[in-house]
Amino acid sequence: MGLTPTERTVIRRGPEKAAFDVATLYDVLDSSLIAHVGICDSSGQPFVLPTAFARVENSVAFHGSTASRLFKSLAHGSPCCLTVTCLDGLVLARSAFESSMNYRSAVVLGVPQVVTGDRELAVLESISEHLMPGRWSEIRPPAEQELKATLTLVLELAECSVKIRRGGPEDVPDDLATTPWSTTWAGHVPMGTTFGTPVADPHTPANTPIPQYIGDWG
Amino acid sequence: MGLTPTERTVIRRGPEKAAFDVATLYDVLDSSLIAHVGICDSSGQPFVLPTAFARVENSVAFHGSTASRLFKSLAHGSPCCLTVTCLDGLVLARSAFESSMNYRSAVVLGVPQVVTGDRELAVLESISEHLMPGRWSEIRPPAEQELKATLTLVLELAECSVKIRRGGPEDVPDDLATTPWSTTWAGHVPMGTTFGTPVADPHTPANTPIPQYIGDWG
Repeated sequence: MGLTPTERTVIRRGPEKAAFDVATLYDVLDSSLIAHVGICDSSGQPFVLPTAFARVENSVAFHGSTASRLFKSLAHGSPCCLTVTCLDGLVLARSAFESSMNYRSAVVLGVPQVVTGDRELAVLESISEHLMPGRWSEIRPPAEQELKATLTLVLELAECSVKIRRGGPEDVPDDLATTPWSTTWAGHVPMGTTFGTPVADPHTPANTPIPQYIGDWG
Repeated sequence: MGLTPTERTVIRRGPEKAAFDVATLYDVLDSSLIAHVGICDSSGQPFVLPTAFARVENSVAFHGSTASRLFKSLAHGSPCCLTVTCLDGLVLARSAFESSMNYRSAVVLGVPQVVTGDRELAVLESISEHLMPGRWSEIRPPAEQELKATLTLVLELAECSVKIRRGGPEDVPDDLATTPWSTTWAGHVPMGTTFGTPVADPHTPANTPIPQYIGDWG
């Protein structure tokens, strides 16, 4: 399975934060709407770009322009790293050193595969439904020339790591016993993502109701 | 200035989304609490990891463990890419192809520099105050052995790009004129980050008030 640590994915810093079960990996991937994809050029310069994505069974899928250098390079077999991070909160310790963040992150290494035909269409639907559940059945599906302009990639969850930090600070005993630090408020402040009020565009006919599925997001 | 496009930072896909003013670059960097940092190993495999960071004057600063492979490699002169992305909303177009996200992203390329001594302490304070404004004066500053375990890096904003998408969909004329797409609700749904109710840890003395500065976050 993809969560068995390899030399490249073993978590050496904070190993107690590593998770090794598939359900947790899937949960982290399913909780975020964007991923950051890294590739290297021939000089060893990395490039990291944000992208919409979705987990599709035991893989992550993302898409871009067939004219993009990044996507061309990936289509030609460049190894990539796809990282997903959910920032869950801030950890207010009694010292600067123990101050931290609560987060869930997943790192996936590998060479993505190009998908085409019916499978590409199914993967594009999965990405759309991950980002905007309920939307796909209401919109025009991709036309042939739109599909030609789109490169859809799937990266198997074959070599991954997951790291999670939750809860309050882990202060050193001295700070818990010494004023003023021992009387300082310490704990954590949860963070989350919220959706605001939908804004109709000028072409939407007056009195068109806001789709009900939007109310289920977040 | 760092926003003059180079061969490596010129935005070819969606060039109308590129921004070239320093105020916009600073705003994007100042709006996010985490960055994704990419480096390449000697085999050309990229690694992308999330990190807390802050803009400090005309640079971005971040820190990690002196024992981390990533940070050791950066300290020894590996080029990196630091990317910051603010997800601002979902764009519900009338077609799958025009469906999109609203976002602001900044990409910074370069070789970070290690900072030490008084400058390191000042940079660590800047990172803390970016993440948790008001907190630094209440907590124990780093001890000497904690500083020894911390590698603090500063990456000048010398080669950067900024890309921004705002507002509603840009549907093709056919979809605006053809039912059922022309009568579909289309627009955008804003997204944002919120802070929840602070949770005191068990060591915080009863009745310790929640610090007032937390109320100013978000």
